[in-house]
Amino acid sequence: MEKHIVLLPGDGIGPEVTKAAKKVLQAVADRYQHSFTFESHDIGGVAIDQQGTPLPEDTVKAAKKADAIFLGAVGGPKWDQLPGHMRPEKGLLGIRKQLGLFANLRPVKAFPQLLHASPLKQEVVAASDLLIVRELTGGLYFGQPSERRNGGKEVVDTLAYERSEIERIVDQAFKSARVRRKQLTSVDKANVLESSRMWREVVEEKSKEYPDVLVEHMLVDAAAMKLVTNPAYFDVLVTENMFGDILSDEASVLTGSLGMLPSASLNEHGVGLYEPVHGSAPDIAGQNKANPLASILSVAMMLKHSFGMEEEAEQVEAAVHEVLDEGYHTSDIDLVGGIQVSGSGLATKVVDQ
Amino acid sequence: MEKHIVLLPGDGIGPEVTKAAKKVLQAVADRYQHSFTFESHDIGGVAIDQQGTPLPEDTVKAAKKADAIFLGAVGGPKWDQLPGHMRPEKGLLGIRKQLGLFANLRPVKAFPQLLHASPLKQEVVAASDLLIVRELTGGLYFGQPSERRNGGKEVVDTLAYERSEIERIVDQAFKSARVRRKQLTSVDKANVLESSRMWREVVEEKSKEYPDVLVEHMLVDAAAMKLVTNPAYFDVLVTENMFGDILSDEASVLTGSLGMLPSASLNEHGVGLYEPVHGSAPDIAGQNKANPLASILSVAMMLKHSFGMEEEAEQVEAAVHEVLDEGYHTSDIDLVGGIQVSGSGLATKVVDQ
Ligand SMILES: CC(C)[C@H](C(=O)O)[C@@H](O)C(=O)O
Ligand SMILES: CC(C)[C@H](C(=O)O)[C@@H](O)C(=O)O
Repeated sequence: MEKHIVLLPGDGIGPEVTKAAKKVLQAVADRYQHSFTFESHDIGGVAIDQQGTPLPEDTVKAAKKADAIFLGAVGGPKWDQLPGHMRPEKGLLGIRKQLGLFANLRPVKAFPQLLHASPLKQEVVAASDLLIVRELTGGLYFGQPSERRNGGKEVVDTLAYERSEIERIVDQAFKSARVRRKQLTSVDKANVLESSRMWREVVEEKSKEYPDVLVEHMLVDAAAMKLVTNPAYFDVLVTENMFGDILSDEASVLTGSLGMLPSASLNEHGVGLYEPVHGSAPDIAGQNKANPLASILSVAMMLKHSFGMEEEAEQVEAAVHEVLDEGYHTSDIDLVGGIQVSGSGLATKVVDQ
Repeated sequence: MEKHIVLLPGDGIGPEVTKAAKKVLQAVADRYQHSFTFESHDIGGVAIDQQGTPLPEDTVKAAKKADAIFLGAVGGPKWDQLPGHMRPEKGLLGIRKQLGLFANLRPVKAFPQLLHASPLKQEVVAASDLLIVRELTGGLYFGQPSERRNGGKEVVDTLAYERSEIERIVDQAFKSARVRRKQLTSVDKANVLESSRMWREVVEEKSKEYPDVLVEHMLVDAAAMKLVTNPAYFDVLVTENMFGDILSDEASVLTGSLGMLPSASLNEHGVGLYEPVHGSAPDIAGQNKANPLASILSVAMMLKHSFGMEEEAEQVEAAVHEVLDEGYHTSDIDLVGGIQVSGSGLATKVVDQ
């Protein structure tokens, strides 16, 4: 197959982990006789520095034509004092909106090798294997008005959804649940928010199309508790943008493997932006220390979700497990009796599997 | 001192734990020669059943005249299918708003005796001692419009704040920090929300009045992570209503002592509503099993925050620690080598200290 991939290395350790992702994609192309072409563009802080805006036009144009996009990371203290519209995050929010990347998929799975680094007791967290499906282009993040009023005496933000926006994310979540353990937890605040009541109705309606999936509703405060007390309880959790932001980050630290977590943000045509969950880690940038495994697992998600390459995706995931089993790791991880290597060294180990 | 206390026993185990709270208040009155008078009113499900509304007028009237209010719990499956405005929670939201109870204080402290019940590793959670200050009468909970639009094709909720509402809760948080370890973490989503940017400005301004308090800003997603990875990091955490709902529930399960956590909701005149954090637990209601300690610790907060009775409050807290040290506990708690007693039995033990 021929696929065109846009790389957005971004800031901090972004370029390093993007290099690792590209290396793995090239190895997959070689081994399975695909042809992957690449082009790189600026986003975030580096785009502000080079082109005066966090999301240059040519980046958007290229992304719109790509079969898939890989993003390293954006942001860093260097740009923290800039005004709102000139912040690196605006690049990320902008590309999500412009490409219609409404479905953010964040799997969290315990790696047995890394459980000792979890803040949770081993018996609480060991069986965890959940997927958070977060709505990514609606809600409080984009609703209007979002402004000061009355001479600065008041402020409003708006949590707005179209019913169709709720329908498509809920549908995506049911589809995800169907190929997993068939359990869907829909998280809302229906005892307070009108938008949550609509959300609940849509889930009830959609559930008729997926009679094989077991659905339940959970309030967001209860979900925030349950993620800590019993993360293994969840299979697929679906929720709106802001709740998803909070809960997916809460979930990301449960298993002690934040440096290992991938993500995908998909649009209606299956085009996706793939990105490691960890940030730009400016403190270790440029030192070849960054853990490339979250990026490599994001590549596996790309192969599966945007290219339909199930076997290739499984191969990449297996290779990651293999290097961990062999004890190789970067300095962010502490594997008893393991062998510490550089970021690029670890990527090479994965490719050599 | 003479004080008039309104009791709102509510639903499920509410009446049982309210009885325990009253018993302790009477013991304090006896021992310190105060005169506490009591009157009881309906709220929540029981009010729906008896008077056809979750918040009867005479409840509000009585509460407005009280020096302090104690609330047991509201809600239960019996009322879950009722329409929104007839749900037990509306009683709670209504009384918060009508009495202007804008400052919700939720302390979370690890009890050494109960740490084994925590989902977190002992070394992660042991030193935790934090206070969440949640804004309780603004934001998404009360903002207008909150409605369907365009024939049901769209829905909006509104996150609205007046600057003065932000100022008073931030001020309360600084005051709380000043009598604790003098560290304040203000939690917002300033990289996305205009309301959060105003929140951040107010915190910066107020901080000039409290130069002895160390302030930092943290994004809500980062806070959701940090509460799990390092809860001992926090002293006082202040945030808006919805973020506070999620984070305070997340925090409540960290130490393994959810059945022990008190809360206070204060207005500008120091009148407060005191309530255990646990819910109405309908499954064990009426069996004299409910743990009364969260309610008794809520009484301690009442003595301190509404009556200025520091010594009495400390006495009550000490008595709770004492009974735990002696090994007494209700069935929700598993104390190795402890002595299991009934809810009223445990309350008597506290009073007998
Ligand atoms: C950078 C920020 C705007 C973003 C978000 O809140 O969506 C980030 O936290 C994320 O979760 O991808
Ligand atoms: C019952 C509900 C409306 C309430 C809230 O969200 O405020 C509860 O969760 C709480 O935290 O006291």
